[in-house]
Amino acid sequence: MIKFRLFLLALLAGGTAAAQPVAPLTARQGNVRLTVALGPDGRPTYAVAFGTKPVVNASRLGLALTDGRGFDGPMLLTGSETKDVDETWQPVLGEVKNIRNHYQQLTVHLRQAAAPGRRLDVVFRVFADGVGFRYEFPRQPRLQYFVVSDELTEFALPGDPKAFWIPGDYDTNEYPYTVSKLSEVDNSALVKSSTAIAVREVPDAQLVATPLMLKANDGLYVNLHEAAQVDYPAMQLHVDRATRRLTARLVPDAVGTKAYVHAPGHTPWRTIIVSDKAPDILASKLILNLNEPSKIGNTSWIKPMKFVGVWWEMQTGKTNWRYADSADTLNAAGQLIANGHHGATTANVKRYINFAAAHHIPGVLVEGWNEGWEDWFGNWKEPVFDFVTPYPDFNVAEIQQYAAGKGVQMIMHNETSGAATNYEQHLDTAYSFMNRYGYPAVKTGYVGRIIPRGEHHDGQWMSNHYVRVAETAAKHHVTVDMHESVRPTGLSRTYPNWVASEAGRGNEYNAFTPEGNAPEHETIMPFTRFMGGPMDYTPGIFKLKDYVAGHPERQVRTTLAKQLALYVVLYSPLQMAADLPENYTAHPDAFKFIEDVAVDWDDTRVLEAEPGEYISTARLEKGGERWFLGAITNANRRTATLNLSFLPRGRRYTATLYADAPGADWKTNPEAYRISTQTVSAGTTLRVPLAPGGGCAISLVPAK
Amino acid sequence: MIKFRLFLLALLAGGTAAAQPVAPLTARQGNVRLTVALGPDGRPTYAVAFGTKPVVNASRLGLALTDGRGFDGPMLLTGSETKDVDETWQPVLGEVKNIRNHYQQLTVHLRQAAAPGRRLDVVFRVFADGVGFRYEFPRQPRLQYFVVSDELTEFALPGDPKAFWIPGDYDTNEYPYTVSKLSEVDNSALVKSSTAIAVREVPDAQLVATPLMLKANDGLYVNLHEAAQVDYPAMQLHVDRATRRLTARLVPDAVGTKAYVHAPGHTPWRTIIVSDKAPDILASKLILNLNEPSKIGNTSWIKPMKFVGVWWEMQTGKTNWRYADSADTLNAAGQLIANGHHGATTANVKRYINFAAAHHIPGVLVEGWNEGWEDWFGNWKEPVFDFVTPYPDFNVAEIQQYAAGKGVQMIMHNETSGAATNYEQHLDTAYSFMNRYGYPAVKTGYVGRIIPRGEHHDGQWMSNHYVRVAETAAKHHVTVDMHESVRPTGLSRTYPNWVASEAGRGNEYNAFTPEGNAPEHETIMPFTRFMGGPMDYTPGIFKLKDYVAGHPERQVRTTLAKQLALYVVLYSPLQMAADLPENYTAHPDAFKFIEDVAVDWDDTRVLEAEPGEYISTARLEKGGERWFLGAITNANRRTATLNLSFLPRGRRYTATLYADAPGADWKTNPEAYRISTQTVSAGTTLRVPLAPGGGCAISLVPAK
Repeated sequence: MIKFRLFLLALLAGGTAAAQPVAPLTARQGNVRLTVALGPDGRPTYAVAFGTKPVVNASRLGLALTDGRGFDGPMLLTGSETKDVDETWQPVLGEVKNIRNHYQQLTVHLRQAAAPGRRLDVVFRVFADGVGFRYEFPRQPRLQYFVVSDELTEFALPGDPKAFWIPGDYDTNEYPYTVSKLSEVDNSALVKSSTAIAVREVPDAQLVATPLMLKANDGLYVNLHEAAQVDYPAMQLHVDRATRRLTARLVPDAVGTKAYVHAPGHTPWRTIIVSDKAPDILASKLILNLNEPSKIGNTSWIKPMKFVGVWWEMQTGKTNWRYADSADTLNAAGQLIANGHHGATTANVKRYINFAAAHHIPGVLVEGWNEGWEDWFGNWKEPVFDFVTPYPDFNVAEIQQYAAGKGVQMIMHNETSGAATNYEQHLDTAYSFMNRYGYPAVKTGYVGRIIPRGEHHDGQWMSNHYVRVAETAAKHHVTVDMHESVRPTGLSRTYPNWVASEAGRGNEYNAFTPEGNAPEHETIMPFTRFMGGPMDYTPGIFKLKDYVAGHPERQVRTTLAKQLALYVVLYSPLQMAADLPENYTAHPDAFKFIEDVAVDWDDTRVLEAEPGEYISTARLEKGGERWFLGAITNANRRTATLNLSFLPRGRRYTATLYADAPGADWKTNPEAYRISTQTVSAGTTLRVPLAPGGGCAISLVPAK
Repeated sequence: MIKFRLFLLALLAGGTAAAQPVAPLTARQGNVRLTVALGPDGRPTYAVAFGTKPVVNASRLGLALTDGRGFDGPMLLTGSETKDVDETWQPVLGEVKNIRNHYQQLTVHLRQAAAPGRRLDVVFRVFADGVGFRYEFPRQPRLQYFVVSDELTEFALPGDPKAFWIPGDYDTNEYPYTVSKLSEVDNSALVKSSTAIAVREVPDAQLVATPLMLKANDGLYVNLHEAAQVDYPAMQLHVDRATRRLTARLVPDAVGTKAYVHAPGHTPWRTIIVSDKAPDILASKLILNLNEPSKIGNTSWIKPMKFVGVWWEMQTGKTNWRYADSADTLNAAGQLIANGHHGATTANVKRYINFAAAHHIPGVLVEGWNEGWEDWFGNWKEPVFDFVTPYPDFNVAEIQQYAAGKGVQMIMHNETSGAATNYEQHLDTAYSFMNRYGYPAVKTGYVGRIIPRGEHHDGQWMSNHYVRVAETAAKHHVTVDMHESVRPTGLSRTYPNWVASEAGRGNEYNAFTPEGNAPEHETIMPFTRFMGGPMDYTPGIFKLKDYVAGHPERQVRTTLAKQLALYVVLYSPLQMAADLPENYTAHPDAFKFIEDVAVDWDDTRVLEAEPGEYISTARLEKGGERWFLGAITNANRRTATLNLSFLPRGRRYTATLYADAPGADWKTNPEAYRISTQTVSAGTTLRVPLAPGGGCAISLVPAK
């Protein structure tokens, strides 16, 4: 009755809205229920519940525009429609073979109560595991091109949930996670101390990034993010610590506004994934479902890949990207003088090719192969790299032939140092070069401040840039792995050649910072960064201590077995075996798991999970019968309980366990592992002890 | 003695500068004398004199850097060198066949007196007609990449000269000229009222653009501008009205800083052209001489060209660029609905081709041929045009074949609407398209706010963009005519395919503004805008009144004869005959001059000139014997005195005079002209009456 009265008030205030309904609009799917209403002030609100539990209390919807006539005032409800969709589709690369897209859609038609009477639709899709909604701008005479100054979307959270968060930074997602109550969010100390991150810009101590993982007091798991972030800046969330109300904040452009929109058009989807079981969050396909189908017709050339690379040796200081000590280190002829520490030499690359060929690793990445690394970084310099000119000690053709002769594919590296305009100027040339030398994949990088100057890594212009790169790459049949890009929002569905991104805190922080990644880091990442899509986390470090000369304090905060488990727990169709060949040949029995493990899957089961605590995941290789299983824990010792009931009944499997040895500990004894085999079946439940910071990787091969 | 003492003080303050000279440094060439000294505060200054008259009093030199350790404090003079250069070079296209580059160079080596002791060179070149100087940054450990926050260069002018100025606007040079004392400069009312200019951003009411033309009380003519503006923003000048001290102001970038520089490097040249005779200013080659020689090896494909175009009919509203009334005017199939007013139709273009072929005009420009004009402007929209997709009624291949069959070349039009990033994304595709369809030339346009957002038309980023466009065009053997670009600084020497720019107030303002261009406008332009290089002014309007339906008040403020004279007075290797074919066929006798007149020259003589009053110029056609002569006046009736002593002795010429008829007047009777012939020789002095707003064009053909 209360809601009815509110609508009536809105109706009276609004005047002439003939189609004004008299009750709140609702939609539901399974346990998830959405309610949309006009508030007493005529402003639209939505609320989400899971069963009887509130997920999001009545929260504001709207957008402010720079012309001052935006969707921030009273609105009239002029109509609504619902429809039900249940369809199934196949991702090109993915965690499962088939994805069901099953939702009830509610479209709410609104009109400004006052002049100019602009129309706005809010479209909600309600799934069994959450809600997505976006603003749609119908074609209309009084709203054509416009500029969003602020998005007013709110997420009013009941209680004071536990949050797994990183600062909302315009230029990076590479912070370590903080776990705190939402009412305690304050990023300022962390932002200040994170000097290993090249570019940091955080305007607000209560700003957090998405995906934001929350655990409510009543046990609900809630994940907030967005889907299909195209032609729009990334959304971050400002936390009102007193009320636990989160408000959308869009990453600004160079002149401080947010988004340039053309009607008909729409925003990305705002996503709320919810369940009372943590594994359901990891299994959710809501974000992928809200993305558009592939824009690439023929996708047969898009392949997943494991690779090694001339990379960790640079991160750990054994060699370097640059050929000379500085751009001013020149001989009398004006040529760079080699410093003798260049990693990307023809001879060294051949060593990696040999290793890859011997161990069935299909790809080799080489960084620092091209001119420009002497002063690539930190100068906001536009013409940094040309993406086609190798250093004198890197023979492109010779390496290409050598690799091809051994059945190995080279992976291109295009670091832009943030000069996106420079990259766009060279894009056709760079990708034609890849085609000429048979590179099927490229890793791109955006370390440094963005050019166009004043733009941000996560703003609208750069978001469009990443899509342009993916599109150009697709035209050239090249797959892309973007580093330092905006965090993903499921766009790998639409651009399946955009196989992975970094856009989070990868293993590399263990190389160049003393704090590295905490033992719980990888138990949080799948609930946060990975919700939007695959990450090139670069797991597989075997030498977990004493890998940086002169820095005995640096160590990877996992056991070796946990590094193996990450190949399963962390989903990516592009997975690096990041350590040096010599560190792998020291442990050939353990490396066997990396050789064996798949990177593309027909099925995935999250067996148990708790953010910040533990995750155990099983996956079925694409087009095969082998399952792979990874179980990880945080700093706490625990026993993984792995119920194998997902195996087909009546089949027996040989399970090879790569487990922490007794006494293993990330801090004191990380490389202690034990490999064992046993026969298992669907009836088996494995109980595997995990060391502090430990894990276990398991391959399950049908018994002969 | 005073100067000696100042230096001694600097020496004592500075401490250890062993090479410190004890007298001011000087250089001279002809009447021009330069003095460089350290001021009492240790800051470097320069002064310029012409004979006994001061041109620039002791004026500050220096640069402030964003790191706070720039060249704005006390400096030590650590050495200097002079050298004399006298060489001659040939421009690819030009006003004269040979250009003498004759100067004395003084290089002044400076070092910061305080830490970090960075080094700065100031290089001066003293010519007989002025001085150029620039800052050079030697390779040094403590200055590698740096950002200029302000350039501190000053021009302290004696007295209170008369100035011919336009506002210093970050985004346009299309204002009408104001003539005032320097002490009276105030651009605010003009900026406010100039609503016909799409984008205006003027931060300061006393800011003026360069080239700035000055006439001193003592009769000296002084022109201030710059040369070789590459990888640096345009310089504008702030006028201190009390002291008549001008201070450099650099056009800022999106984040408010000015220039990103990498040592070794340098700024553009700051130029001071001076003479006691106004024609010497117009004849000066100082700016071209300060530019680098051509970077294009083979220049044989670079051709000058006269052209007609589907353009004035759009400017005057007879037809339109756009195909449909709006981007939302769609039929049921989602296709644009033609509005019936589209100018760039195949049939209409053929009409222009026919006219060009019949009248020996080599080129036809067509604007509005490609999709996107319905909403091209004013929305800060990035993906505006793709530069290759024609409207349905413009058949690229058919037009190309038709033109080729008649010996006519099509000129491409690439409007960007300021979205330079979008143009760069399409650059290779756009120029390949020109090659495919045989377009030898392109007119580009930048109407609207720049993208990258926050950048300006005349800032460093865009300046680099224009060069990138010229370079890409050269790679494709295409000549370029840039509209709404930064004003030129002699770069046509270095990039000879960059044949012309607009970057000033062209004839088009007579089409779309009631105020149009004042009668004196074209007597000022050669002393200002044209000092940096050729302009596509689009002269040749024959129908001087009643050319815009419904706007009888609009008229061109010249006579018809003056329009003809502009082909000689205004130098450009790319000259449009801008009026409609039907307006030319109404005056075939007058159009004969446009048919005949050359656009590339072996010699040029400025016979008489006074800025704002009158100019009479004679030019010898490239590789021929015909001379062409143009004389123009402002609103005042006067008699042009044309001494033909430049003609070879003993040769007789048939002079055809296209003169104002008695009673002609720009306001009341502009189309009254009279054509007459007479035989002349080197001994002849023609005295030709010029009507108010009038002019006279003359062809001189050797008598048989």
